[in-house]
Amino acid sequence: VDGTKAQPHPFDDAVTLERDNGQVRGRTTAPYNNMVGPFGGVTAAVIVRAIEQHPEVHGQPIALTVNYLGPIAEGGFELSARPVRTNRTNQHWTVELSQGGAVTTTATAVFGLRRPTWSATEAAPPTAPAPADVPVGGFPAAIAWAQNYEARFVDGGLDGLGGLPLDDSVTTMWIRDHPARALDFAALTAISDTFYPRVFRRLGSFVPAGTVSLTTYFHVSAEGLAKQGSEPLLATARAHRFGLGYFDQSAQLWGTGGTLLATSQQIVYFKA
Amino acid sequence: VDGTKAQPHPFDDAVTLERDNGQVRGRTTAPYNNMVGPFGGVTAAVIVRAIEQHPEVHGQPIALTVNYLGPIAEGGFELSARPVRTNRTNQHWTVELSQGGAVTTTATAVFGLRRPTWSATEAAPPTAPAPADVPVGGFPAAIAWAQNYEARFVDGGLDGLGGLPLDDSVTTMWIRDHPARALDFAALTAISDTFYPRVFRRLGSFVPAGTVSLTTYFHVSAEGLAKQGSEPLLATARAHRFGLGYFDQSAQLWGTGGTLLATSQQIVYFKA
Repeated sequence: VDGTKAQPHPFDDAVTLERDNGQVRGRTTAPYNNMVGPFGGVTAAVIVRAIEQHPEVHGQPIALTVNYLGPIAEGGFELSARPVRTNRTNQHWTVELSQGGAVTTTATAVFGLRRPTWSATEAAPPTAPAPADVPVGGFPAAIAWAQNYEARFVDGGLDGLGGLPLDDSVTTMWIRDHPARALDFAALTAISDTFYPRVFRRLGSFVPAGTVSLTTYFHVSAEGLAKQGSEPLLATARAHRFGLGYFDQSAQLWGTGGTLLATSQQIVYFKA
Repeated sequence: VDGTKAQPHPFDDAVTLERDNGQVRGRTTAPYNNMVGPFGGVTAAVIVRAIEQHPEVHGQPIALTVNYLGPIAEGGFELSARPVRTNRTNQHWTVELSQGGAVTTTATAVFGLRRPTWSATEAAPPTAPAPADVPVGGFPAAIAWAQNYEARFVDGGLDGLGGLPLDDSVTTMWIRDHPARALDFAALTAISDTFYPRVFRRLGSFVPAGTVSLTTYFHVSAEGLAKQGSEPLLATARAHRFGLGYFDQSAQLWGTGGTLLATSQQIVYFKA
Protein backbone atom coordinates (compact mmCIF):
# COMPACT_ATOMS: atom_id res chain seq x y z
CA VAL A 1 0.00 0.00 0.00
CA ASP A 2 1.37 3.37 -1.05
CA GLY A 3 0.05 5.73 1.60
CA THR A 4 1.46 8.73 -0.24
CA LYS A 5 -0.57 8.09 -3.38
CA ALA A 6 -2.55 11.24 -4.17
CA GLN A 7 -6.23 11.20 -5.11
CA PRO A 8 -6.62 11.80 -8.85
CA HIS A 9 -7.92 15.22 -9.92
CA PRO A 10 -11.75 15.05 -10.21
CA PHE A 11 -11.44 15.81 -13.94
CA ASP A 12 -9.01 12.94 -14.51
CA ASP A 13 -11.38 10.68 -12.60
CA ALA A 14 -14.34 11.84 -14.72
CA VAL A 15 -12.61 11.05 -18.03
CA THR A 16 -11.15 7.70 -16.95
CA LEU A 17 -12.02 4.92 -19.40
CA GLU A 18 -11.58 1.16 -19.27
CA ARG A 19 -10.59 -0.62 -22.46
CA ASP A 20 -11.22 -4.34 -22.65
CA ASN A 21 -11.13 -6.35 -25.90
CA GLY A 22 -12.08 -3.30 -27.96
CA GLN A 23 -14.91 -2.40 -25.58
CA VAL A 24 -14.49 1.03 -23.99
CA ARG A 25 -16.44 1.87 -20.86
CA GLY A 26 -16.68 5.00 -18.70
CA ARG A 27 -19.00 6.26 -16.00
CA THR A 28 -20.46 9.51 -14.80
CA THR A 29 -19.01 11.01 -11.61
CA ALA A 30 -20.93 13.10 -9.09
CA PRO A 31 -18.57 16.10 -9.16
CA TYR A 32 -19.44 16.72 -12.85
CA ASN A 33 -23.22 16.37 -12.55
CA ASN A 34 -25.38 19.02 -14.16
CA MET A 35 -29.10 19.60 -13.51
CA VAL A 36 -30.00 16.45 -15.48
CA GLY A 37 -27.15 14.02 -16.19
CA PRO A 38 -23.50 14.99 -16.51
CA PHE A 39 -22.12 18.37 -17.67
CA GLY A 40 -22.02 18.29 -21.50
CA GLY A 41 -18.43 19.53 -21.48
CA VAL A 42 -17.19 16.50 -19.62
CA THR A 43 -19.05 14.20 -22.02
CA ALA A 44 -17.24 15.93 -24.89
CA ALA A 45 -13.97 15.52 -22.97
CA VAL A 46 -14.60 11.80 -22.53
CA ILE A 47 -14.98 11.49 -26.32
CA VAL A 48 -11.66 13.28 -26.90
CA ARG A 49 -10.00 11.02 -24.35
CA ALA A 50 -11.45 7.86 -25.96
CA ILE A 51 -9.89 8.84 -29.30
CA GLU A 52 -6.57 9.90 -27.76
CA GLN A 53 -6.28 6.51 -26.06
CA HIS A 54 -7.36 4.50 -29.10
CA PRO A 55 -4.50 2.28 -30.35
CA GLU A 56 -4.89 3.59 -33.94
CA VAL A 57 -4.92 7.32 -33.12
CA HIS A 58 -2.98 9.47 -35.63
CA GLY A 59 -2.19 13.00 -34.50
CA GLN A 60 -3.84 15.54 -32.22
CA PRO A 61 -7.36 17.03 -32.08
CA ILE A 62 -8.19 19.48 -34.89
CA ALA A 63 -12.01 19.55 -34.78
CA LEU A 64 -14.76 17.94 -32.72
CA THR A 65 -18.54 17.97 -33.07
CA VAL A 66 -20.62 16.44 -30.27
CA ASN A 67 -24.39 15.97 -30.57
CA TYR A 68 -26.46 15.57 -27.40
CA LEU A 69 -29.31 13.23 -28.31
CA GLY A 70 -30.71 12.81 -24.83
CA PRO A 71 -29.81 12.75 -21.14
CA ILE A 72 -27.12 10.41 -19.81
CA ALA A 73 -28.22 8.59 -16.64
CA GLU A 74 -25.85 8.43 -13.67
CA GLY A 75 -23.69 5.32 -13.96
CA GLY A 76 -21.79 3.48 -16.67
CA PHE A 77 -21.75 4.03 -20.44
CA GLU A 78 -20.18 2.42 -23.48
CA LEU A 79 -18.11 4.22 -26.12
CA SER A 80 -17.62 3.17 -29.71
CA ALA A 81 -14.87 5.19 -31.44
CA ARG A 82 -14.17 4.26 -35.06
CA PRO A 83 -11.35 5.67 -37.23
CA VAL A 84 -13.34 5.86 -40.47
CA ARG A 85 -10.41 7.03 -42.57
CA THR A 86 -6.73 7.66 -41.89
CA ASN A 87 -4.98 9.93 -44.37
CA ARG A 88 -1.29 10.82 -44.40
CA THR A 89 -1.71 13.94 -42.27
CA ASN A 90 -5.16 13.54 -40.70
CA GLN A 91 -7.71 11.04 -39.44
CA HIS A 92 -11.53 11.11 -39.29
CA TRP A 93 -13.47 9.59 -36.40
CA THR A 94 -17.09 8.67 -35.72
CA VAL A 95 -18.02 8.14 -32.07
CA GLU A 96 -21.13 6.95 -30.26
CA LEU A 97 -21.76 6.96 -26.53
CA SER A 98 -24.56 4.67 -25.35
CA GLN A 99 -26.26 3.29 -22.26
CA GLY A 100 -28.06 -0.05 -22.36
CA GLY A 101 -27.86 -0.08 -26.15
CA ALA A 102 -29.51 3.36 -26.56
CA VAL A 103 -27.30 6.04 -28.12
CA THR A 104 -27.20 9.21 -25.97
CA THR A 105 -24.43 11.10 -27.79
CA THR A 106 -22.88 11.05 -31.26
CA ALA A 107 -19.69 12.76 -32.39
CA THR A 108 -17.32 13.20 -35.27
CA ALA A 109 -13.72 14.30 -34.86
CA VAL A 110 -10.76 15.22 -37.02
CA PHE A 111 -7.33 14.49 -35.63
CA GLY A 112 -4.14 15.42 -37.47
CA LEU A 113 -0.42 15.93 -37.45
CA ARG A 114 0.68 19.43 -36.51
CA ARG A 115 3.49 21.06 -38.47
CA PRO A 116 4.78 24.62 -38.53
CA THR A 117 3.19 26.77 -41.26
CA TRP A 118 2.61 30.44 -41.84
CA SER A 119 0.59 31.65 -38.88
CA ALA A 120 -1.43 34.67 -37.80
CA THR A 121 -4.09 35.48 -35.24
CA GLU A 122 -6.67 37.74 -36.81
CA ALA A 123 -9.13 37.86 -33.93
CA ALA A 124 -8.27 39.97 -30.87
CA PRO A 125 -8.79 38.90 -27.26
CA PRO A 126 -11.33 40.88 -25.23
CA THR A 127 -10.01 43.59 -22.92
CA ALA A 128 -9.75 42.27 -19.37
CA PRO A 129 -7.92 43.03 -16.13
CA ALA A 130 -5.32 40.45 -15.00
CA PRO A 131 -6.86 37.38 -13.30
CA ALA A 132 -5.49 38.46 -9.93
CA ASP A 133 -7.51 41.68 -10.22
CA VAL A 134 -10.86 39.91 -10.73
CA PRO A 135 -12.61 38.20 -7.80
CA VAL A 136 -13.12 34.44 -7.95
CA GLY A 137 -16.74 33.28 -8.01
CA GLY A 138 -19.98 33.69 -9.83
CA PHE A 139 -20.99 30.14 -10.71
CA PRO A 140 -24.11 28.99 -8.78
CA ALA A 141 -23.38 26.75 -5.78
CA ALA A 142 -26.21 24.41 -6.84
CA ILE A 143 -24.43 23.35 -10.06
CA ALA A 144 -22.06 20.52 -9.12
CA TRP A 145 -19.76 20.65 -12.16
CA ALA A 146 -19.18 24.39 -11.77
CA GLN A 147 -17.47 23.78 -8.43
CA ASN A 148 -14.61 22.16 -10.40
CA TYR A 149 -13.79 25.45 -12.09
CA GLU A 150 -12.21 28.62 -10.81
CA ALA A 151 -14.11 31.35 -12.66
CA ARG A 152 -13.53 35.10 -12.52
CA PHE A 153 -16.23 36.97 -14.40
CA VAL A 154 -14.93 40.01 -16.26
CA ASP A 155 -18.25 40.72 -17.97
CA GLY A 156 -21.69 39.10 -18.17
CA GLY A 157 -21.75 37.09 -14.94
CA LEU A 158 -24.91 35.53 -13.58
CA ASP A 159 -24.86 38.06 -10.73
CA GLY A 160 -25.74 40.71 -13.27
CA LEU A 161 -29.05 39.02 -14.07
CA GLY A 162 -31.56 41.13 -12.22
CA GLY A 163 -34.66 40.17 -14.11
CA LEU A 164 -34.11 42.96 -16.63
CA PRO A 165 -33.53 42.06 -20.26
CA LEU A 166 -30.02 42.98 -21.45
CA ASP A 167 -28.95 44.23 -24.85
CA ASP A 168 -26.14 41.77 -25.47
CA SER A 169 -25.32 38.20 -24.58
CA VAL A 170 -21.57 38.59 -24.04
CA THR A 171 -19.86 36.80 -21.17
CA THR A 172 -16.10 37.07 -20.63
CA MET A 173 -14.37 35.19 -17.83
CA TRP A 174 -11.01 33.94 -16.66
CA ILE A 175 -11.39 30.21 -16.09
CA ARG A 176 -9.35 27.14 -15.20
CA ASP A 177 -9.85 23.78 -13.56
CA HIS A 178 -10.18 23.76 -9.77
CA PRO A 179 -7.94 22.57 -8.24
CA ALA A 180 -5.55 24.00 -10.86
CA ARG A 181 -4.50 21.35 -13.39
CA ALA A 182 -2.20 21.45 -16.44
CA LEU A 183 -4.37 22.02 -19.53
CA ASP A 184 -4.79 19.16 -22.02
CA PHE A 185 -7.13 18.73 -24.99
CA ALA A 186 -9.82 17.00 -22.93
CA ALA A 187 -9.89 19.82 -20.36
CA LEU A 188 -9.82 22.50 -23.08
CA THR A 189 -12.80 20.77 -24.73
CA ALA A 190 -14.75 20.80 -21.47
CA ILE A 191 -13.97 24.49 -20.89
CA SER A 192 -15.44 25.29 -24.31
CA ASP A 193 -18.83 24.31 -22.81
CA THR A 194 -18.61 26.18 -19.46
CA PHE A 195 -20.69 29.22 -20.46
CA TYR A 196 -24.19 29.41 -19.04
CA PRO A 197 -26.94 29.66 -21.71
CA ARG A 198 -26.78 33.04 -23.49
CA VAL A 199 -30.57 33.35 -23.42
CA PHE A 200 -30.44 33.74 -19.61
CA ARG A 201 -28.51 36.94 -20.10
CA ARG A 202 -30.73 38.38 -22.81
CA LEU A 203 -33.96 37.65 -20.89
CA GLY A 204 -32.55 38.34 -17.43
CA SER A 205 -34.03 35.08 -16.16
CA PHE A 206 -33.57 31.33 -16.16
CA VAL A 207 -35.53 29.46 -18.83
CA PRO A 208 -35.29 25.83 -19.99
CA ALA A 209 -32.23 25.52 -22.27
CA GLY A 210 -29.85 22.76 -23.32
CA THR A 211 -27.00 22.31 -25.80
CA VAL A 212 -27.99 20.22 -28.81
CA SER A 213 -24.71 20.28 -30.76
CA LEU A 214 -21.21 21.57 -29.90
CA THR A 215 -18.34 22.09 -32.36
CA THR A 216 -14.84 22.98 -31.13
CA TYR A 217 -11.82 23.78 -33.31
CA PHE A 218 -8.36 23.45 -31.76
CA HIS A 219 -5.75 26.01 -32.80
CA VAL A 220 -2.91 24.74 -30.62
CA SER A 221 -0.60 21.72 -30.49
CA ALA A 222 0.14 19.58 -27.43
CA GLU A 223 3.40 21.53 -27.15
CA GLY A 224 1.48 24.82 -27.07
CA LEU A 225 -0.89 23.47 -24.42
CA ALA A 226 2.09 22.50 -22.27
CA LYS A 227 3.19 26.15 -22.34
CA GLN A 228 -0.22 27.19 -21.00
CA GLY A 229 0.16 24.87 -18.02
CA SER A 230 -2.44 25.58 -15.35
CA GLU A 231 -2.77 29.33 -15.99
CA PRO A 232 -6.34 30.69 -16.44
CA LEU A 233 -7.84 31.03 -19.92
CA LEU A 234 -9.66 34.16 -21.03
CA ALA A 235 -12.95 32.79 -22.34
CA THR A 236 -15.54 34.87 -24.15
CA ALA A 237 -18.87 33.95 -25.74
CA ARG A 238 -21.84 35.56 -27.43
CA ALA A 239 -24.86 34.63 -29.54
CA HIS A 240 -25.72 35.81 -33.05
CA ARG A 241 -29.40 34.86 -33.25
CA PHE A 242 -32.20 33.64 -30.98
CA GLY A 243 -35.48 32.37 -32.42
CA LEU A 244 -37.74 29.47 -33.39
CA GLY A 245 -36.67 27.49 -30.32
CA TYR A 246 -32.88 27.69 -30.72
CA PHE A 247 -29.95 30.06 -30.39
CA ASP A 248 -26.28 29.80 -31.33
CA GLN A 249 -23.24 30.54 -29.18
CA SER A 250 -19.81 31.49 -30.53
CA ALA A 251 -16.86 31.26 -28.11
CA GLN A 252 -13.14 31.98 -28.08
CA LEU A 253 -10.69 30.52 -25.56
CA TRP A 254 -7.54 32.60 -25.19
CA GLY A 255 -4.34 31.45 -23.50
CA THR A 256 -1.52 33.39 -21.93
CA GLY A 257 0.11 35.98 -24.20
CA GLY A 258 -2.85 36.32 -26.57
CA THR A 259 -2.66 32.76 -27.92
CA LEU A 260 -6.00 31.66 -29.37
CA LEU A 261 -6.25 28.06 -28.14
CA ALA A 262 -9.71 27.16 -29.43
CA THR A 263 -12.85 28.53 -31.06
CA SER A 264 -16.17 26.88 -30.42
CA GLN A 265 -19.80 27.01 -31.56
CA GLN A 266 -22.92 25.50 -30.16
CA ILE A 267 -26.61 25.43 -30.95
CA VAL A 268 -28.87 25.46 -27.94
CA TYR A 269 -32.55 24.56 -27.50
CA PHE A 270 -34.57 26.99 -25.39
CA LYS A 271 -38.15 27.67 -24.34
CA ALA A 272 -39.26 31.28 -23.81
CA VAL B 1 -42.82 13.46 -75.44
CA ASP B 2 -43.50 16.72 -73.61
CA GLY B 3 -41.68 19.27 -75.67
CA THR B 4 -42.45 22.01 -73.16
CA LYS B 5 -40.77 20.26 -70.23
CA ALA B 6 -38.09 22.58 -68.87
CA GLN B 7 -34.58 21.41 -68.04
CA PRO B 8 -34.13 21.14 -64.27
CA HIS B 9 -31.98 23.81 -62.60
CA PRO B 10 -28.36 22.55 -62.46
CA PHE B 11 -28.56 22.64 -58.65
CA ASP B 12 -31.69 20.48 -58.57
CA ASP B 13 -29.98 18.07 -60.94
CA ALA B 14 -26.87 17.95 -58.72
CA VAL B 15 -28.85 17.04 -55.57
CA THR B 16 -31.15 14.49 -57.24
CA LEU B 17 -31.14 11.17 -55.40
CA GLU B 18 -32.59 7.78 -56.23
CA ARG B 19 -34.14 5.77 -53.41
CA ASP B 20 -34.56 2.04 -53.95
CA ASN B 21 -35.29 -0.43 -51.14
CA GLY B 22 -33.59 1.78 -48.55
CA GLN B 23 -30.55 2.29 -50.79
CA VAL B 24 -29.97 5.94 -51.70
CA ARG B 25 -27.77 6.81 -54.67
CA GLY B 26 -26.61 10.10 -56.17
CA ARG B 27 -23.98 11.16 -58.67
CA THR B 28 -21.64 14.05 -59.25
CA THR B 29 -22.53 16.48 -62.05
CA ALA B 30 -20.04 18.40 -64.18
CA PRO B 31 -21.48 21.88 -63.46
CA TYR B 32 -20.58 21.50 -59.75
CA ASN B 33 -17.03 20.20 -60.22
CA ASN B 34 -14.28 21.80 -58.18
CA MET B 35 -10.52 21.44 -58.79
CA VAL B 36 -10.58 17.85 -57.49
CA GLY B 37 -14.00 16.21 -57.20
CA PRO B 38 -17.25 18.08 -56.60
CA PHE B 39 -17.69 21.40 -54.76
CA GLY B 40 -17.91 20.62 -51.04
CA GLY B 41 -21.00 22.78 -50.71
CA VAL B 42 -22.99 20.62 -53.10
CA THR B 43 -21.90 17.48 -51.23
CA ALA B 44 -23.24 19.05 -48.03
CA ALA B 45 -26.45 19.95 -49.90
CA VAL B 46 -26.86 16.34 -51.08
CA ILE B 47 -26.68 15.24 -47.43
CA VAL B 48 -29.40 17.71 -46.43
CA ARG B 49 -31.55 16.52 -49.32
CA ALA B 50 -31.06 12.84 -48.38
CA ILE B 51 -32.39 13.55 -44.87
CA GLU B 52 -35.24 15.75 -46.10
CA GLN B 53 -36.41 12.96 -48.42
CA HIS B 54 -36.02 10.18 -45.83
CA PRO B 55 -39.42 8.64 -44.96
CA GLU B 56 -38.77 9.08 -41.21
CA VAL B 57 -37.68 12.75 -41.27
CA HIS B 58 -39.03 14.82 -38.36
CA GLY B 59 -38.79 18.59 -38.76
CA GLN B 60 -36.45 20.96 -40.55
CA PRO B 61 -32.65 21.42 -40.50
CA ILE B 62 -31.26 22.97 -37.29
CA ALA B 63 -27.56 22.02 -37.50
CA LEU B 64 -25.31 20.15 -39.91
CA THR B 65 -21.67 19.06 -39.65
CA VAL B 66 -20.01 17.59 -42.75
CA ASN B 67 -16.53 16.04 -42.65
CA TYR B 68 -14.57 15.72 -45.89
CA LEU B 69 -12.49 12.54 -45.53
CA GLY B 70 -11.15 12.43 -49.06
CA PRO B 71 -11.94 13.34 -52.65
CA ILE B 72 -15.13 12.11 -54.34
CA ALA B 73 -14.50 10.70 -57.82
CA GLU B 74 -16.74 11.77 -60.70
CA GLY B 75 -19.66 9.37 -60.95
CA GLY B 76 -22.07 7.64 -58.60
CA PHE B 77 -22.07 7.47 -54.81
CA GLU B 78 -24.12 5.79 -52.09
CA LEU B 79 -25.67 7.54 -49.11
CA SER B 80 -26.54 6.01 -45.78
CA ALA B 81 -28.65 8.34 -43.61
CA ARG B 82 -29.70 6.97 -40.23
CA PRO B 83 -32.08 8.64 -37.74
CA VAL B 84 -30.18 7.67 -34.58
CA ARG B 85 -32.75 9.16 -32.22
CA THR B 86 -36.09 10.89 -32.66
CA ASN B 87 -37.22 13.05 -29.75
CA ARG B 88 -40.53 14.87 -29.45
CA THR B 89 -39.20 18.11 -30.94
CA ASN B 90 -35.96 17.09 -32.64
CA GLN B 91 -34.15 14.29 -34.44
CA HIS B 92 -30.46 13.33 -34.69
CA TRP B 93 -28.92 11.92 -37.87
CA THR B 94 -25.69 10.20 -38.79
CA VAL B 95 -24.84 10.13 -42.50
CA GLU B 96 -22.12 8.51 -44.60
CA LEU B 97 -21.42 9.05 -48.27
CA SER B 98 -19.32 6.36 -49.94
CA GLN B 99 -17.98 5.18 -53.27
CA GLY B 100 -17.18 1.51 -53.88
CA GLY B 101 -17.48 0.83 -50.16
CA ALA B 102 -14.96 3.53 -49.14
CA VAL B 103 -16.38 6.37 -47.04
CA THR B 104 -15.56 9.79 -48.53
CA THR B 105 -17.76 11.98 -46.32
CA THR B 106 -19.36 11.70 -42.87
CA ALA B 107 -21.96 13.96 -41.34
CA THR B 108 -24.21 14.47 -38.37
CA ALA B 109 -27.35 16.58 -38.48
CA VAL B 110 -30.00 17.84 -36.11
CA PHE B 111 -33.47 18.37 -37.53
CA GLY B 112 -36.32 19.75 -35.44
CA LEU B 113 -39.76 21.28 -35.26
CA ARG B 114 -39.84 25.06 -35.46
CA ARG B 115 -42.14 26.98 -33.16
CA PRO B 116 -42.42 30.67 -32.36
CA THR B 117 -40.34 31.74 -29.33
CA TRP B 118 -38.80 34.93 -28.06
CA SER B 119 -36.45 36.08 -30.81
CA ALA B 120 -33.64 38.57 -31.32
CA THR B 121 -30.81 39.09 -33.77
CA GLU B 122 -27.74 40.21 -31.86
CA ALA B 123 -25.27 40.22 -34.74
CA ALA B 124 -25.43 43.01 -37.32
CA PRO B 125 -25.14 42.56 -41.07
CA PRO B 126 -22.10 44.13 -42.75
CA THR B 127 -22.57 47.48 -44.46
CA ALA B 128 -23.08 46.98 -48.18
CA PRO B 129 -24.55 48.82 -51.17
CA ALA B 130 -27.72 47.33 -52.70
CA PRO B 131 -27.04 44.34 -55.00
CA ALA B 132 -27.97 46.37 -58.08
CA ASP B 133 -25.15 48.79 -57.22
CA VAL B 134 -22.42 46.12 -57.13
CA PRO B 135 -21.14 44.59 -60.39
CA VAL B 136 -21.67 40.88 -60.97
CA GLY B 137 -18.51 38.78 -61.24
CA GLY B 138 -15.34 37.92 -59.44
CA PHE B 139 -15.36 34.14 -59.30
CA PRO B 140 -12.62 32.56 -61.49
CA ALA B 141 -13.84 31.25 -64.84
CA ALA B 142 -11.79 28.07 -64.32
CA ILE B 143 -13.90 26.93 -61.34
CA ALA B 144 -16.92 25.07 -62.76
CA TRP B 145 -19.18 25.25 -59.68
CA ALA B 146 -18.71 29.01 -59.31
CA GLN B 147 -20.45 29.56 -62.66
CA ASN B 148 -23.68 28.42 -60.97
CA TYR B 149 -23.62 31.42 -58.65
CA GLU B 150 -24.23 35.08 -59.27
CA ALA B 151 -21.71 36.78 -56.98
CA ARG B 152 -21.24 40.50 -56.37
CA PHE B 153 -18.17 41.17 -54.25
CA VAL B 154 -18.64 44.04 -51.80
CA ASP B 155 -15.29 43.47 -50.08
CA GLY B 156 -12.45 40.96 -50.30
CA GLY B 157 -12.84 39.69 -53.85
CA LEU B 158 -10.19 37.61 -55.57
CA ASP B 159 -9.47 40.53 -57.87
CA GLY B 160 -7.95 42.32 -54.90
CA LEU B 161 -5.27 39.66 -54.51
CA GLY B 162 -2.25 41.35 -55.98
CA GLY B 163 0.43 39.22 -54.39
CA LEU B 164 0.59 41.51 -51.39
CA PRO B 165 -0.32 40.12 -47.98
CA LEU B 166 -3.46 41.72 -46.55
CA ASP B 167 -4.23 42.51 -42.92
CA ASP B 168 -7.62 40.87 -42.74
CA SER B 169 -9.38 37.90 -44.28
CA VAL B 170 -12.86 39.39 -44.63
CA THR B 171 -14.91 38.71 -47.74
CA THR B 172 -18.43 40.10 -48.13
CA MET B 173 -20.54 39.34 -51.18
CA TRP B 174 -24.08 39.30 -52.48
CA ILE B 175 -24.71 35.80 -53.77
CA ARG B 176 -27.51 33.64 -55.18
CA ASP B 177 -27.89 30.66 -57.44
CA HIS B 178 -27.49 31.27 -61.17
CA PRO B 179 -29.92 31.05 -62.83
CA ALA B 180 -31.90 32.55 -59.93
CA ARG B 181 -33.71 29.85 -57.93
CA ALA B 182 -35.97 29.99 -54.85
CA LEU B 183 -33.82 29.34 -51.78
CA ASP B 184 -34.26 26.07 -49.90
CA PHE B 185 -32.22 24.45 -47.13
CA ALA B 186 -30.04 22.47 -49.56
CA ALA B 187 -29.13 25.60 -51.53
CA LEU B 188 -28.53 27.63 -48.35
CA THR B 189 -26.18 24.88 -47.14
CA ALA B 190 -24.22 24.99 -50.39
CA ILE B 191 -23.94 28.78 -50.24
CA SER B 192 -22.39 28.49 -46.75
CA ASP B 193 -19.36 26.93 -48.51
CA THR B 194 -18.97 29.37 -51.43
CA PHE B 195 -16.17 31.49 -49.92
CA TYR B 196 -12.71 30.99 -51.38
CA PRO B 197 -10.08 29.95 -48.77
CA ARG B 198 -9.36 32.83 -46.37
CA VAL B 199 -5.62 32.12 -46.48
CA PHE B 200 -5.53 33.23 -50.15
CA ARG B 201 -6.52 36.69 -49.00
CA ARG B 202 -4.07 36.91 -46.12
CA LEU B 203 -1.12 35.71 -48.21
CA GLY B 204 -2.17 37.42 -51.43
CA SER B 205 -1.61 34.19 -53.35
CA PHE B 206 -3.07 30.78 -54.07
CA VAL B 207 -1.79 27.97 -51.88
CA PRO B 208 -3.04 24.38 -51.42
CA ALA B 209 -6.14 24.49 -49.16
CA GLY B 210 -9.22 22.36 -48.60
CA THR B 211 -12.15 22.22 -46.19
CA VAL B 212 -11.85 19.41 -43.66
CA SER B 213 -15.03 19.99 -41.65
CA LEU B 214 -18.02 22.33 -42.13
CA THR B 215 -20.71 23.13 -39.55
CA THR B 216 -23.79 25.17 -40.49
CA TYR B 217 -26.54 26.33 -38.12
CA PHE B 218 -29.92 27.27 -39.61
CA HIS B 219 -31.76 30.19 -38.03
CA VAL B 220 -34.77 30.18 -40.33
CA SER B 221 -37.81 28.00 -40.98
CA ALA B 222 -39.03 26.78 -44.37
CA GLU B 223 -41.63 29.56 -44.18
CA GLY B 224 -38.86 32.14 -43.67
CA LEU B 225 -36.89 30.74 -46.61
CA ALA B 226 -39.98 31.05 -48.81
CA LYS B 227 -40.03 34.78 -48.02
CA GLN B 228 -36.43 35.08 -49.22
CA GLY B 229 -37.33 33.56 -52.59
CA SER B 230 -34.57 34.03 -55.14
CA GLU B 231 -33.25 37.35 -53.81
CA PRO B 232 -29.46 37.57 -53.19
CA LEU B 233 -28.01 36.81 -49.76
CA LEU B 234 -25.43 39.05 -48.12
CA ALA B 235 -22.69 36.61 -47.17
CA THR B 236 -19.67 37.51 -45.07
CA ALA B 237 -16.76 35.43 -43.78
CA ARG B 238 -13.51 35.82 -41.89
CA ALA B 239 -10.93 33.71 -40.09
CA HIS B 240 -9.87 33.91 -36.43
CA ARG B 241 -6.60 31.96 -36.51
CA PHE B 242 -4.16 30.50 -39.07
CA GLY B 243 -1.40 28.12 -37.98
CA LEU B 244 -0.07 24.57 -37.65
CA GLY B 245 -1.54 23.58 -41.01
CA TYR B 246 -5.14 24.74 -40.47
CA PHE B 247 -7.30 27.84 -40.26
CA ASP B 248 -10.92 28.43 -39.31
CA GLN B 249 -13.60 30.36 -41.16
CA SER B 250 -16.66 31.94 -39.58
CA ALA B 251 -19.50 32.99 -41.91
CA GLN B 252 -22.89 34.69 -41.71
CA LEU B 253 -25.56 34.46 -44.41
CA TRP B 254 -28.02 37.37 -44.27
CA GLY B 255 -31.35 37.49 -46.07
CA THR B 256 -33.49 40.38 -47.16
CA GLY B 257 -34.41 42.83 -44.40
CA GLY B 258 -31.54 41.90 -42.09
CA THR B 259 -32.74 38.34 -41.44
CA LEU B 260 -29.87 36.09 -40.31
CA LEU B 261 -30.59 32.87 -42.22
CA ALA B 262 -27.53 30.84 -41.21
CA THR B 263 -24.18 30.95 -39.44
CA SER B 264 -21.42 28.61 -40.48
CA GLN B 265 -17.93 27.53 -39.43
CA GLN B 266 -15.30 25.52 -41.20
CA ILE B 267 -11.81 24.29 -40.51
CA VAL B 268 -9.53 24.27 -43.52
CA TYR B 269 -6.25 22.50 -44.23
CA PHE B 270 -3.58 24.64 -45.89
CA LYS B 271 0.08 24.50 -46.88
CA ALA B 272 2.18 27.69 -46.73
